[in-house]
Amino acid sequence: MTAYEVIRNKRDKLELTFDEISWFINGHLEGNVSDYQMSALLMAIYLNGMSDSETVALTNALALSGETIDLGSFGNATVDKHSTGGVGDKTTLVVAPIAASLGCFVAKMSGRGLGFTGGTYDKLSSIPGYKITPEKDEFLAIVRKTGLSVVGQSDRLTPADKKIYALRDVTATVDSLPLIASSIMSKKIAAGAHSIVLDVKYGAGAFMKTPETALRLAETMVRIGKEQWRNTTAIITDMNVPLGFAVGNNLEVIEAVKLLQGANIPDLYRECVNIAALMVSSAKNIPFERAKVLSAEALDSGAAYNKFVQWISAQGGDVSYIENTNKFYRCKYSADVCAEKDGYLYKMDTEKIGETACLLGAGRKTVDDDIDYSAGIILNKKTGDYVERGERLCTLYSNDKSIIDLAKAMYGSAVEINDKRPESLPEIYKIVT
Amino acid sequence: MTAYEVIRNKRDKLELTFDEISWFINGHLEGNVSDYQMSALLMAIYLNGMSDSETVALTNALALSGETIDLGSFGNATVDKHSTGGVGDKTTLVVAPIAASLGCFVAKMSGRGLGFTGGTYDKLSSIPGYKITPEKDEFLAIVRKTGLSVVGQSDRLTPADKKIYALRDVTATVDSLPLIASSIMSKKIAAGAHSIVLDVKYGAGAFMKTPETALRLAETMVRIGKEQWRNTTAIITDMNVPLGFAVGNNLEVIEAVKLLQGANIPDLYRECVNIAALMVSSAKNIPFERAKVLSAEALDSGAAYNKFVQWISAQGGDVSYIENTNKFYRCKYSADVCAEKDGYLYKMDTEKIGETACLLGAGRKTVDDDIDYSAGIILNKKTGDYVERGERLCTLYSNDKSIIDLAKAMYGSAVEINDKRPESLPEIYKIVT
Repeated sequence: MTAYEVIRNKRDKLELTFDEISWFINGHLEGNVSDYQMSALLMAIYLNGMSDSETVALTNALALSGETIDLGSFGNATVDKHSTGGVGDKTTLVVAPIAASLGCFVAKMSGRGLGFTGGTYDKLSSIPGYKITPEKDEFLAIVRKTGLSVVGQSDRLTPADKKIYALRDVTATVDSLPLIASSIMSKKIAAGAHSIVLDVKYGAGAFMKTPETALRLAETMVRIGKEQWRNTTAIITDMNVPLGFAVGNNLEVIEAVKLLQGANIPDLYRECVNIAALMVSSAKNIPFERAKVLSAEALDSGAAYNKFVQWISAQGGDVSYIENTNKFYRCKYSADVCAEKDGYLYKMDTEKIGETACLLGAGRKTVDDDIDYSAGIILNKKTGDYVERGERLCTLYSNDKSIIDLAKAMYGSAVEINDKRPESLPEIYKIVT
Repeated sequence: MTAYEVIRNKRDKLELTFDEISWFINGHLEGNVSDYQMSALLMAIYLNGMSDSETVALTNALALSGETIDLGSFGNATVDKHSTGGVGDKTTLVVAPIAASLGCFVAKMSGRGLGFTGGTYDKLSSIPGYKITPEKDEFLAIVRKTGLSVVGQSDRLTPADKKIYALRDVTATVDSLPLIASSIMSKKIAAGAHSIVLDVKYGAGAFMKTPETALRLAETMVRIGKEQWRNTTAIITDMNVPLGFAVGNNLEVIEAVKLLQGANIPDLYRECVNIAALMVSSAKNIPFERAKVLSAEALDSGAAYNKFVQWISAQGGDVSYIENTNKFYRCKYSADVCAEKDGYLYKMDTEKIGETACLLGAGRKTVDDDIDYSAGIILNKKTGDYVERGERLCTLYSNDKSIIDLAKAMYGSAVEINDKRPESLPEIYKIVT
């Protein structure tokens, strides 16, 4: 077998074999297949696609390219959750404690945010003392003790995925369904949970712009997971509007804490209950509707909040910040963006709102950029709300005074105010099993 | 402009601009665009194609990536000739002297043979004393003095093409019409001749397997040449059967000398007259049919032979070898391949015959392989001939006794003997102007 032959076969739309794919991926990791050969193959995959069995083989090769976590000692109730990324998506902070409070084990690895999407890694890092990269033994001990732990993605897992992703990023081959699906699923499979719940977002603030493409990605990933004997399900959720009212790392932690403490944040509440229910239903093998009732109860009763405090504390976080979120560092500068006319908030360009948060300091453009945990946006109005001229749409927070005006303009251009009331988009919570 | 954007645009089937292409090619040559980005672009070009104006822009960028030869001082009668490669193709050795004897200037650079196709570089190198890589001044002085010179391709010409070709070779992106056309034409344009004659071969012993694909390549190259103000024409020729009877470097030189001395080798004679006529017609601006008469006269009268001797002598070659071709070194070992039954020689797998010659030592698999100038094949029978059982089909020559049996088997499997007489293929000498 040669790299040339594998590239040629994909170029000519032949189906690659399991052996060809695993040989190529391992060869690349070990340096026997060059980066330029990998990028030629990636472009051929981008343009010619991959069959289901090719995508499964690719996922398998990536998953087995490094260390894998064995969660067997926790039994069958281990569950992982992955979001394809959105703006204001702090659900992990809520659903992991709900699931753990109901007897699931959540041993989760999380990536850093990149571009307009935030990452759970960064949100948790904004809690003073929280150890985001403990040793593996400590990670598993926290799961054993509290039922959950969330840590940074280990470099020892799926090194082939990391090496390939770096190439995709500079060769315009990121946005390919089989490459996205196998990259995500390889990390979930290597992380060892028996059940995997995928939150696949669509809309203006998501990578997948339509419910249809989100559904295709979800179906592909569910098939991959099942082929690898993982109990995999997916939920399709809307990201046309930011989730909740907070965008930015410690701002989102605060909002998650408020929700866990009983605050009324309807869209976030609904989404968290749905996702948690899917996790509980998968991991404990109980009907989804029953799991939904249990999840809502766990949230309403404070059981999930108690679990959250227990987890943060076990992982070194300073719980006084949770008990009194006013202790969190606030930005030096803030500015309101106000409505320029009366009307309905007709539409939000959620991706641009994510980019505004980035500009304020809440995100990073490249993986090595620094992040300002306190920067971000608190929304006051969301799509469908009626606003009067001069009324506050949101408040921007930053430690860099020089970019405030630009951020205001960006946010202003991301929202559309109109005489018409927007049609309420159907809430799609399609579940793929 | 970023490499990412250029790759993405080609990936998305947008037409690349002249600036995008030239920026990318120069960036790659200078090291600002990486090999893996180039190979992603190459695969996208392979799969999505290129428009005519993209191909012209690519050719231009390649042609201008290094030194260019200025033949302006020779006036308008400069003419170059390129063959897309075949088996037994020694036409350059004949047509260049014909054209020079009729007042054309032929300052030609030639590549080494690779794989099953021979290269004029190697054939000429088999003449003792012949200086295949003189300095540029000496090269042009020989052209001035004798009307022609053929030298090895200078590394200073089209370095971007060389760098890209090395990548194409290992990323399964060689066999792409716009990439082939631009690579060939960039070298011809950099080499400076005002008229360019392209011999585009089709059939079992050529890169293009059908007359249709050969025609498409020819048309593309002619368009590119004209866009660059070169008087470009092409001739489509058959390579289903080896050209002439000799395959191998000094064996082909000997055959070319015999033809120039008046030997009767019908297919080679016909092809040489056609190609020479196209060169003379282009360079001297006279009708093709008239140029054909002149070319045949030049060959028949010995004028072309005299020009050949003058050229070889001017370039340092030992003319005693030309005057007495028995002086050429012969291989230590030879073996006949004989017919296993009576019948018509129905079909020849010309590519496999080229590979047999390679195995005997006449060719190279990689550019750095050594070559045995005396190794090769003398055919006795060609497609359409009737043979009796035991009659000699060819003689193989090699200095490596150990591969003779394998070479015999290979040649045997390359020819098919059948009771039926093969239909004579139409001789296609389509000319593209």
